[in-house]
Amino acid sequence: MNILEIIDKKKNKQELAKEEIEFFISAYVKEEIADYQAAALVMAIFLNGMTKEETTNLTIAMANSGEILDLSKLNKTIVDKHSTGGVGDKVSICLLPLVASLGVPVAKMSGRGLGFTGGTVDKMQSIPGYKTDIDIHNFIENVENIGISMISQTLNLAPADKKLYALRDSISCVESIPLIASSIMSKKIASGAEKIVLDVTVGNGAFMKNIEDAKMLANEMIEIGKLANRETVCILTNMDEPLGYMVGNNLEVIEAIQFLKGSMPEDLKQVVLELGSYMIKLAGLGNNLEENKLRMLEKINSGGAFNKFVEMVKNQDGDISYLIDTNKFDKAQYIEEVISTKDGYVQEINAENIGKIACGLGAGRIRKEDIIDYSVGLKLCKKVSEKVTKGETLGIVYANDMKKLEIAKKQLLDTVVICDKEVQRFPTIFGICK
Amino acid sequence: MNILEIIDKKKNKQELAKEEIEFFISAYVKEEIADYQAAALVMAIFLNGMTKEETTNLTIAMANSGEILDLSKLNKTIVDKHSTGGVGDKVSICLLPLVASLGVPVAKMSGRGLGFTGGTVDKMQSIPGYKTDIDIHNFIENVENIGISMISQTLNLAPADKKLYALRDSISCVESIPLIASSIMSKKIASGAEKIVLDVTVGNGAFMKNIEDAKMLANEMIEIGKLANRETVCILTNMDEPLGYMVGNNLEVIEAIQFLKGSMPEDLKQVVLELGSYMIKLAGLGNNLEENKLRMLEKINSGGAFNKFVEMVKNQDGDISYLIDTNKFDKAQYIEEVISTKDGYVQEINAENIGKIACGLGAGRIRKEDIIDYSVGLKLCKKVSEKVTKGETLGIVYANDMKKLEIAKKQLLDTVVICDKEVQRFPTIFGICK
Repeated sequence: MNILEIIDKKKNKQELAKEEIEFFISAYVKEEIADYQAAALVMAIFLNGMTKEETTNLTIAMANSGEILDLSKLNKTIVDKHSTGGVGDKVSICLLPLVASLGVPVAKMSGRGLGFTGGTVDKMQSIPGYKTDIDIHNFIENVENIGISMISQTLNLAPADKKLYALRDSISCVESIPLIASSIMSKKIASGAEKIVLDVTVGNGAFMKNIEDAKMLANEMIEIGKLANRETVCILTNMDEPLGYMVGNNLEVIEAIQFLKGSMPEDLKQVVLELGSYMIKLAGLGNNLEENKLRMLEKINSGGAFNKFVEMVKNQDGDISYLIDTNKFDKAQYIEEVISTKDGYVQEINAENIGKIACGLGAGRIRKEDIIDYSVGLKLCKKVSEKVTKGETLGIVYANDMKKLEIAKKQLLDTVVICDKEVQRFPTIFGICK
Repeated sequence: MNILEIIDKKKNKQELAKEEIEFFISAYVKEEIADYQAAALVMAIFLNGMTKEETTNLTIAMANSGEILDLSKLNKTIVDKHSTGGVGDKVSICLLPLVASLGVPVAKMSGRGLGFTGGTVDKMQSIPGYKTDIDIHNFIENVENIGISMISQTLNLAPADKKLYALRDSISCVESIPLIASSIMSKKIASGAEKIVLDVTVGNGAFMKNIEDAKMLANEMIEIGKLANRETVCILTNMDEPLGYMVGNNLEVIEAIQFLKGSMPEDLKQVVLELGSYMIKLAGLGNNLEENKLRMLEKINSGGAFNKFVEMVKNQDGDISYLIDTNKFDKAQYIEEVISTKDGYVQEINAENIGKIACGLGAGRIRKEDIIDYSVGLKLCKKVSEKVTKGETLGIVYANDMKKLEIAKKQLLDTVVICDKEVQRFPTIFGICK
C-alpha cells in the first residue's frame, strides 16, 4: 500500500478501503506522507466525495490517532454536546450546569475560539480563578464528585484532525461536508462520548449557510454515529443573527449567569431546552421531551441549575462572588450606545458581521497567538423583527480603545438593518435530525 | 490576488485569468507558494480541467519562468522536433542530420532519460568524446557554421515546469492532458522554437495508451501553438512495439548510424520521413510533402545525411572513427541469443516491457543519479507480424552481468508473444494533426 495508489483511487472516484484510510492517517501523523500528498488527496476527496463508510472510517482513524478519553470509570452513559459554531453562542455555559442539575453527567472538553466565533473555554476563563487546564485524573474525579466539569482540551485528542484541518484551511478545502462531519465526530469519539447531541447552526454566522447543507451535514454525522455505534441527534438552529443579546467573553458569561438565574432571552432559551431535552433522553433519564423541558425550567426557577454552576466554578477554583454579583466583572473603558437614525423594523443583524465587530474590538483571535480582551464586545438591544423608533438604542459597544470604539459603532449601525415593513422572524429551531 | 482564491476558483470549475496563472507560476518558483498549495491546485486542475486559454497561459508562464533561448541571431525559421517518448526511439539522431543536410537549421537541446524511455543526450554520449554540454554561445555558432548542433539542456529552461512535473509525479497527477501539453510546449517555446513538429507516440510504450487520448493531447498542443503563435504539427506514431530493432544506448546509436548509411528499418524510416517532410515544409524549404520525402531519401543514398552527422560529431569533439566503423563501439561482456520455443507469428512485443528489460540491464535510469551502462541492451530479431519457426532467434541480449543476463533472456522470451494465426500489423503512422 502506498499513498500514490490511494491518491490515484480517489482521483478516479473509487472507494477507499478501511485499511487505506487508516494507512493514510497513521502515516500522515507520523510525517511519512508529505503535506503536498495529503493536499492532493484532500482536494480529490473534496471534489469526488466519500461514501458513508469512507467518512466513518476516516472519523475513526482520526479519533484513534491520539489519546482517547476513557470515561468508563464513571459507569454512566456519557452524552456529549457540541455546536458547529456561532456568534454569541453561550449555550454550553447555560445548558451543561442545567442538565447536570438533573443528573446528566457532564464531562466537557471545549476548544478555544478562532476567527469570528468565540470558544467556550475563553468565555469560562472570564471568571477569575477558574481553571480550565486541569489534569484528566482530576477532571474525571470532578465529574464523579459533583457531576460536572468543563475544561479545555488537555489531552492530545485526534491530532490527525488538527493536522488535516490546518491543511484544509491552507488549501481552501474547509467547506466539505464529509470532511467537516468526520472532523467533528472524530473529536467527539476521542473525547469519550457514547451519545452525542449536536447543535448544527445554520445561517450567515455559521459554517452551513443554508438548511439543505446543514441537513446534509447533520445526516452525515448521524450516519457516522450509527456506523460508529454512537447515537447522535442533531438540532438545526438559526444562526442568521447572534444568539441572545451579548457578544464578547465577560458579557456572554454574564448573560449565561442571568440565564441560569431565570432571565432567559427567548432564542437562547429555545436552543438550551431543545438540546437539553435530548441530552436527558439520551442519558436515559427521561423519554418525554416536553416533560424534560419542564423539568429544566423547574431547575432554573428553583435555583438548582445556578447552584450547580456555582458548585462547578467553586470546584475549579473560580471566584464565585462574580456569579453572585455580576457587576464585579471587569468593565470596558468605553461603553457607548448606538442610536437608531430611523423608524422601522429590524430586518437583519448579520451574525458573521457582529462576530467580526467583536473580534475587531479584541474579543476574539485572528491568529492562534492573539491575546483576548475579556471585557470588550457588544450588546444588542433589539433583535430581528422588533420595532424600532428613531433615537432608540440599537446596541451598546464595549471597547478599550477609542478608535476601535468608533469603528465598531459605525459597523454596528450598518449591521442592524432597519426596514419600513413588518418583518417575520425565522424560527430559532429549524428541525431535528436523528 | 492570493493562492487560496485561485485554488477556490479552480475547485469551483471557474476559469483562471491570465494574471492568476502568472501569479501562481511566478510565486511557486520563488517558493512563496507552498508545495501543498500547488498540489491542491494541480489536483483541482486534474479533476476540473482547463480551457485552451488557461492551458496556453500556463504554458507561456512556465516558458517565461526561466531563461529563453534566443535564436533570432540565426535569422532563419527555427523548427524544433520533440517526441512524447518511446522505447528504441533514435528518431532525432537519424532525422536531424538528415534535415540539416537539406538546409533545415537544427538547434536541438535534448533531455536525459528517466524511467523506461531513453534520452537522446544519453545516446549521443555513447560516441566517445562527443560533447553535449557546450555553452549557448558556441551552440549558436555551431548552428551558424554547419547548420546543426545537438546538446543537452544547458540553459535553465522552464524551471516552473521542472518543479511542477516533479510535484505531479509525487501526487499521481502526471497523466493529465492539459498538464502534459503545457509541460511539453513550455519547454519548446523556451528553447526558441518558432515552429514545432511533434512525434506523439501512442501505445503501451508511450504516455498515451490509445489513439483517442493521443489525438486529444495533439489537439491541445496544436491549440496552444496557435494561441502562442507557434505553428505546430503532430504526427501520431505507433509505440506498441519498440521502434527499429535496437534498444540501449550504443546499440541505438549504431542503428542510427546504419540508418544514415542507408540501412533503414521500415518503421523507423516511416517515422523519420513523415516528421522530416513536415520539418522541411515548416522551415519554408518545400511545400510538397512527398517530394520532401524523396529529397530525404536522396540525401541518405548520396551519403549527404551521414556526412552531415559526421560533421556535427567532429564539430563537437566526437571520435568519428566510431561512425565509420561501428564495430569500434564497446561491446557488452555477454551477448546471448533468445531462441523461439515454438512456431507461429509474433503477436505482440510490449514496448514498455522491452524498455524495462533494458533498464534492468543498466541501459536506463530508475533514479536521476543512476549511472548508465552504454553497452547493454537488446536487439529484436523479429518484429510484430513476422513469421517465426521453433529454434529461430527472437532477439539478442547484451549484458555485463550474468544474473541480469539470465533475467533479461527470460523476460524477453515472455515479452515476444507468439501465436498460431497470422497477425495484421498496425500502421506505424496513425495520422497527422495540424
